[in-house]
Amino acid sequence: MTKNINLNNFEEFLPKTLSAQDKAKAKTLFYKNLALKMHKFYGGKTAVVPKAGIFDINWFNVWYTPGVSAVSTAVRDDNNASFDLSSRANSVAVVSDGTRVLGDGDCTPSGGLGVMEGKALLMKYLGGIDAAALCINSKDEEGKAQAQKIIDFVKMVAPTFGAINLEDISQPNCYRALDALRESLDIPVWHDDAQGTACVTIAGLINALKLAKKDISKIKIVLYGSGAANTTIAKFLILMGAQAGKLIMFDSKGPLHKNRADLQNNPNYYKQWELCQITNEGGLTTHEQAFAGADALVALSKQGPDTIKKDWVKLMAPKAIVFACANPVPEIYPADAKEAGAYIVATGRGDFENQVNNSLCFPGILKGVLLCRAKTITDSMALVAARAIAKRAEDLGISESFILPLMTDIEVFALQAAAVAQAAQEEGAARIKISYQEAYKKAKADIEASRELTKLLTEKNFIQTPSPDIIKQALDEVLANL
Amino acid sequence: MTKNINLNNFEEFLPKTLSAQDKAKAKTLFYKNLALKMHKFYGGKTAVVPKAGIFDINWFNVWYTPGVSAVSTAVRDDNNASFDLSSRANSVAVVSDGTRVLGDGDCTPSGGLGVMEGKALLMKYLGGIDAAALCINSKDEEGKAQAQKIIDFVKMVAPTFGAINLEDISQPNCYRALDALRESLDIPVWHDDAQGTACVTIAGLINALKLAKKDISKIKIVLYGSGAANTTIAKFLILMGAQAGKLIMFDSKGPLHKNRADLQNNPNYYKQWELCQITNEGGLTTHEQAFAGADALVALSKQGPDTIKKDWVKLMAPKAIVFACANPVPEIYPADAKEAGAYIVATGRGDFENQVNNSLCFPGILKGVLLCRAKTITDSMALVAARAIAKRAEDLGISESFILPLMTDIEVFALQAAAVAQAAQEEGAARIKISYQEAYKKAKADIEASRELTKLLTEKNFIQTPSPDIIKQALDEVLANL
Repeated sequence: MTKNINLNNFEEFLPKTLSAQDKAKAKTLFYKNLALKMHKFYGGKTAVVPKAGIFDINWFNVWYTPGVSAVSTAVRDDNNASFDLSSRANSVAVVSDGTRVLGDGDCTPSGGLGVMEGKALLMKYLGGIDAAALCINSKDEEGKAQAQKIIDFVKMVAPTFGAINLEDISQPNCYRALDALRESLDIPVWHDDAQGTACVTIAGLINALKLAKKDISKIKIVLYGSGAANTTIAKFLILMGAQAGKLIMFDSKGPLHKNRADLQNNPNYYKQWELCQITNEGGLTTHEQAFAGADALVALSKQGPDTIKKDWVKLMAPKAIVFACANPVPEIYPADAKEAGAYIVATGRGDFENQVNNSLCFPGILKGVLLCRAKTITDSMALVAARAIAKRAEDLGISESFILPLMTDIEVFALQAAAVAQAAQEEGAARIKISYQEAYKKAKADIEASRELTKLLTEKNFIQTPSPDIIKQALDEVLANL
Repeated sequence: MTKNINLNNFEEFLPKTLSAQDKAKAKTLFYKNLALKMHKFYGGKTAVVPKAGIFDINWFNVWYTPGVSAVSTAVRDDNNASFDLSSRANSVAVVSDGTRVLGDGDCTPSGGLGVMEGKALLMKYLGGIDAAALCINSKDEEGKAQAQKIIDFVKMVAPTFGAINLEDISQPNCYRALDALRESLDIPVWHDDAQGTACVTIAGLINALKLAKKDISKIKIVLYGSGAANTTIAKFLILMGAQAGKLIMFDSKGPLHKNRADLQNNPNYYKQWELCQITNEGGLTTHEQAFAGADALVALSKQGPDTIKKDWVKLMAPKAIVFACANPVPEIYPADAKEAGAYIVATGRGDFENQVNNSLCFPGILKGVLLCRAKTITDSMALVAARAIAKRAEDLGISESFILPLMTDIEVFALQAAAVAQAAQEEGAARIKISYQEAYKKAKADIEASRELTKLLTEKNFIQTPSPDIIKQALDEVLANL
């Protein structure tokens, strides 16, 4: 071998004869196989380290008994002091019951650790936030996941954290938990699968509509899929001025409308039933009716590539906007959507243009609420973040192939944090005052410090660098079984 | 000022005219005042960092989607894989409901953060363990702390961690939670206030008895105080061969015995009532009877200095052993105990000889159970750790003023970890095999890495070094108000 394999060049090591589809499959299988090897190599992804000086053993008289007693009583007497005197102000709990882990369904509580630790890693690297993965068992004695158990758990642990990130919780427990906890807690609660995906999708749509010169208050939008993300996107679109009646949402049985008796009185679908009442004013019932003249499609449904038909896209209005965000295979491949007449296409994938990825927002939004010690995250604060993301892309120069900033951009997170911290203060949701500039500077400094720290730990071998042989082996094993 | 003040030399800055008692008081107040300033300076004590490489942004395809999906499903299919593929194997939850924080009583859940984060810091620095502080609200609607809520919480979060450390939970909930969780969980549960203190006390007693040439199976022991620590010490002493009938335990009303009707049928004192049945076979009822001819005293009761009278110590047998471990002021000062005839005196304080401090055991014991992925910590495993601590001191050379190793000793933690890992395997409690030598080497390497990392973070200014002015100011403020 003349060249070391790495994650930037491994595609060169794939056989040239692979079809586009086999290549995509091989890439996914390669990442999965490498993930198993590398997670084992490191024994997980996050560690806890001191952020306070231990200059000699006497410092434990300050950090522990007898000194720490003053911290305990100061916080007892004024809970706000917990944000000054502990790590709480920069700490987020990433809570999941593992019942809907990525596209893999119920993976058991421990089975959520890979994703939740990954989330914690992203929080640190992209947002300069300290996050703890808490994978919990929400099941009752009959093995049924209970929203109430998630709610009770989070309420109990809330005094430790500055914010809560709910993740990979099955429907309808994810809504129930989010609604109940937003209501009762005095720290922000974020549901990334719903609000996070919605926020980035909206950011992308803002720029796509700008490029297509379409006015949100006038357009017809098809929402394909009725899960946590798309139901939240519907809510956000309406908040932004879209006409509810011109939104057509699909579930597996077709468009939602007032006569969908199967959704009525079903406690598992109460969110969807609400949307039945206000969307699809024409009572459309077929794909053809829904797509005809639609200006935008937001698909967050099941893996493609043939979930969305080219024929449907062909029915859409001129300068149609297509978001096909199922992972890892979009509901329709971008090339097919373009062929069918789409003007702008976005997917969830990093190897196509216009990646819609909620990692673009949660580190910035959560950093913002932490910096002002907010008591909540409102929908309008999430929209402020969406606008900050859209604005950042615009400042970098938007085009049909660039409607969102990339995850490598530090600025987009710092700008969101500052905007969200301002919005929280304006809405009276913040515990402390912090100016836009202060919030921006602090967020940026923390994010930069995270990256420098990661570099330092790697240089000094606290994080080992794996041999390229492991990467090669992971690829060879996949190719042998393709 | 010609000399910079630090925690090694600050006593030189105290007025020479202070009495010994005022000096002790000034020191404690100084540490408390400095703790407030320094906790605010750093904004807490622990941070979360990557322990896996992020060599470029593509690595998130391995650490997050799509690669991590293989980790989720592998763990779903075999829970043991969670120890290989996540940080679980080296992670401990430090759980407290804040209802009995140090000597300060109920400090509210957030009020426990200072101590629990301090504990996490000690876990890392002394044991190379990643610990998460989880301060929880265990109160019902009437504001009463409920053991069942602690039990439910820990059961829910157990799939995330390799072991649980319960801390600063009021009686009797601490016993109830420990007993129920040891029974039901498949990971070790440790109650540091009970088992930790008991383990180190027993380690000190082993060496003290050796020096005094006293045989545990023959001696009379006074246990002064009937809290979580002393009730556990009684259990451990009996396991080691002490005669239960020759143990005399005191609570605030006097010695425990069969006719203590006030303890009968009181669910808050079920542990004490059990001890009423088996200890104090002579039915002694006065201090004088209890102390007369006693070989050892273990006081874990209320602050002195006059809780234990010199006159009582004078009644004890020759070569009497006195452990006076209330903090910060021992039940009797060592000088007074010695004057009254004590041969060996131990306290909880680092500024007297023979400090009994549970920080000497929990990092080693927990490291040991983590290294073999144990399913439980039994009392006999705790005693193995006590013997390893005693043996380490013996190897260093024991004397009346040196019965226990110091917290600065790395070896004592690595030796305990190896001994406990062996014991767990022999008892069939371990998930994996690891030899004594492997466990010893791994523990030692992890502890050394923690200390090197702390040094590196300080050198590179990720941990700032505070100005000596802050230390001086903390001292001046205390002296001005003394």
